[in-house]
Amino acid sequence: MLSKTIIKYIQSLAHKKVRDEQGVFLAEGSKVVWELLNSNKFKCKIICGLKGWMDENDNMINAIAAEDEIEITEAELERISQLQAPNKVVAVFYKKESEPGHLKNNLSLMLDEIQDPGNLGTIIRTADWYGIKNIICSNECADCYNPKVVQASMGSLGRVNIIYTQLEEFIEEKKKISIYAATLSGKNISSFHKLREGIILIGNESKGIKQNLLDLVAEQITIPKKGEAESLNAAVACGIILSHVV
Amino acid sequence: MLSKTIIKYIQSLAHKKVRDEQGVFLAEGSKVVWELLNSNKFKCKIICGLKGWMDENDNMINAIAAEDEIEITEAELERISQLQAPNKVVAVFYKKESEPGHLKNNLSLMLDEIQDPGNLGTIIRTADWYGIKNIICSNECADCYNPKVVQASMGSLGRVNIIYTQLEEFIEEKKKISIYAATLSGKNISSFHKLREGIILIGNESKGIKQNLLDLVAEQITIPKKGEAESLNAAVACGIILSHVV
Repeated sequence: MLSKTIIKYIQSLAHKKVRDEQGVFLAEGSKVVWELLNSNKFKCKIICGLKGWMDENDNMINAIAAEDEIEITEAELERISQLQAPNKVVAVFYKKESEPGHLKNNLSLMLDEIQDPGNLGTIIRTADWYGIKNIICSNECADCYNPKVVQASMGSLGRVNIIYTQLEEFIEEKKKISIYAATLSGKNISSFHKLREGIILIGNESKGIKQNLLDLVAEQITIPKKGEAESLNAAVACGIILSHVV
Repeated sequence: MLSKTIIKYIQSLAHKKVRDEQGVFLAEGSKVVWELLNSNKFKCKIICGLKGWMDENDNMINAIAAEDEIEITEAELERISQLQAPNKVVAVFYKKESEPGHLKNNLSLMLDEIQDPGNLGTIIRTADWYGIKNIICSNECADCYNPKVVQASMGSLGRVNIIYTQLEEFIEEKKKISIYAATLSGKNISSFHKLREGIILIGNESKGIKQNLLDLVAEQITIPKKGEAESLNAAVACGIILSHVV
């Protein structure tokens, strides 16, 4: 049975300000919550699930020992869910600051102002598919704890480090790592087959990569076009590049 | 100046039922509307733009001769826009039934129940980037005239034929065209380099491709995984496959 306080608390987490104050974020849906619990990256604060789901995942729920474990009804799920089709479980996790992992001998991603939460989540999921461990985001990127990002990342948030920083400074500090910027006028992606180290830089959905960042970059890398669309969606472009360079 | 009737009419086009009854759809934003006007595929019924946009595109607007050309204020734009950030222009176009183009000597896409409008729009845009002319959708796919599809397609709707049909029957009829189904357990995409003819089949976001469709398919095609995500977003998968086979 859900108290009014918990309902209000969960609903309030749609707002970044509240998430930041509380240091928590919201995750929903059987697969996403299962993956986040299973990754052991984020401590679980509250878990609210339908009886069937709670029973099915009994062992894991006991092991994680959330502060609140609440069995809820379908009607209660609808009240706290932000999804069009609520899916069995809603959970609140404590955020965790990501430490950047090793950039040497690894491929990483860098995102300059990716603003659409769906795109950011999809990029996190795609990075996880290709075994990329670090995503360096400009401070203007969408919040990786936005519920739409968590949703689109399909649980990969538990396996990829997301670091927010000032990109120009970051690049100046890591001078030894080559940066490959995805643009419309660089070298064909096929020339970058089996890249073992470096950072792939993806730009904003409409403005692309800022000129002052481009000035700091080793190479520009381009996806060849056969048709007429002016550009590709940022997450699709990221997937295509990774599929060719990994 | 916008009449109440036009405001209500435009707002009502968020609903598929109204779009179907009226045989029209809504497009928004400078780039999307410009591309659709420019493609000459869809006849324009109403165009409502800010003064600056209307002046800038004066020649094109005269040439297309919409039934209503209305200069609007920022406040009026906000009332009729469905975007979070309204962008200069909203237009209503007449739908047009797509005839399937030549499938022989061409690559095409087939979509089994792609339900997310953003994914469908992104797939249309990606197809256009790779010069794919035909997308064959199952009747359960999202409506390609849904405003979110139109938005995500970034104007590519004017250059790609979208056909809705019963996929099993379609495949039975076109027996001579090979179908390549994107699954998690097929041959590596790198074995399908420079495919000149065929149909790439992409499945539903969570359920994948229906078994009865898979039974009719020549080959299964898989994107190799290096990391841990269980699957890729459907539009990202589509982009990766096209980038390797085109």
